[in-house]
Amino acid sequence: MQGAIEDALARLEPGPHTIAAAGRTDTGVHGLGQVAHCDLQKPWTPFRLSEALNFHLKPAPVAIVDCAEVDPEWHARFSAIERQYLFRILIRRAPATHDAGQVWQVNNDLDVDAMQEAANHLLGNHDFTTFRSSICQAQSPQKTLDELRIERVMGLSGPEVHFHVRARSFLHNQVRSFVGTLERVGAGAWEPQDVKSALEACDRAACGPVCPGHGLYLARVGYPVDPFMAPGHSPKDRQSDS
Amino acid sequence: MQGAIEDALARLEPGPHTIAAAGRTDTGVHGLGQVAHCDLQKPWTPFRLSEALNFHLKPAPVAIVDCAEVDPEWHARFSAIERQYLFRILIRRAPATHDAGQVWQVNNDLDVDAMQEAANHLLGNHDFTTFRSSICQAQSPQKTLDELRIERVMGLSGPEVHFHVRARSFLHNQVRSFVGTLERVGAGAWEPQDVKSALEACDRAACGPVCPGHGLYLARVGYPVDPFMAPGHSPKDRQSDS
Repeated sequence: MQGAIEDALARLEPGPHTIAAAGRTDTGVHGLGQVAHCDLQKPWTPFRLSEALNFHLKPAPVAIVDCAEVDPEWHARFSAIERQYLFRILIRRAPATHDAGQVWQVNNDLDVDAMQEAANHLLGNHDFTTFRSSICQAQSPQKTLDELRIERVMGLSGPEVHFHVRARSFLHNQVRSFVGTLERVGAGAWEPQDVKSALEACDRAACGPVCPGHGLYLARVGYPVDPFMAPGHSPKDRQSDS
Repeated sequence: MQGAIEDALARLEPGPHTIAAAGRTDTGVHGLGQVAHCDLQKPWTPFRLSEALNFHLKPAPVAIVDCAEVDPEWHARFSAIERQYLFRILIRRAPATHDAGQVWQVNNDLDVDAMQEAANHLLGNHDFTTFRSSICQAQSPQKTLDELRIERVMGLSGPEVHFHVRARSFLHNQVRSFVGTLERVGAGAWEPQDVKSALEACDRAACGPVCPGHGLYLARVGYPVDPFMAPGHSPKDRQSDS
């Protein structure tokens, strides 16, 4: 995604261009609400810039949903104070068709109440070593999880379970480690209390299986003042999207 | 879709095989709840047949959601007493990414209340010549529209407008003619009353623009006795899906 946008920018102004994105979206992770910034020479209006970038982005599966002008010191990543992820599980035995590559599929129904009970043990400030990839570069495994809400929704292709996960920042593979572990609770293989024990173990080996990334969406990035909601900015949808 | 399933059947039993489907899904239309029947020699259990067909269907974007054994005289199309379609409009200026090819995109918001008021004029038994393709093969333009419900929902990529349309049977391009015409009402170009006048004109030229097919889903086919809900049948999801 980053490369496609940088190439499109080079069609507008001589490059090379480097964009800085708010949240990492590893291979297979969808940048639904991704925010990135870049420096430009010409005085582009945000609307014209969106249109020009989307023209040059075709046919890549990436689109600019909105642009906004920001102060020079504003940084998409370092100015962010909150990230919200969505994870989608599709419950269906037959292979996904419309949603292929956009959901994690499991064959059997999941106990949402048990998963939510387990998830509540993860809320707040903890040492999340158990739910952290061994290649994580963060200085500390200590993070504050502000929300982990699980709901069952009816999707086009069958019932889905959605995980809404929100924090200032995340460790590498933290959401996928949460979802993979909580799925074990939903399937009845783990008790909710087992997740509390796994957290308290502060041991990567205590984590459940890490689930695949293709059900994961960076849904929203929060800033102290949202540049897309600033006075004079057109009240459209926001963010880039891939 | 039909060809892919017939090819998969030929991998299970010597062919050629011909399946008969309940509702037409023209190019770009999604067979979410399509139902089809075929004759087989071997005594397949429904579950094993689903699994075997899905194995051979890969990597085609088609899946069998459920199979059921039916009486020899049962016919997927002629035994059906109801079809339900879903049409999805995505309101968003930026090109669709996740939903590309699965929604009709419009740039500006639509007035759902005005569209519903217009749609209510279409309910019941009418001569639907206005909303019928010139190549329609049906013997009569007289049909009974049982439901045309419009709702605004929040999709992953932005706000969507969903049209839920239900009847015993439909004329060629009837749903796309409805949606294209109602969109003109939602955009403010037509008044709700104009749809009543268009209907009463019984004239194809009075129809609004026919919308593209790629937002259209055959959502459900109804039978007097649902073969997928019969006693002894596993209570799973139903229907084939493409």
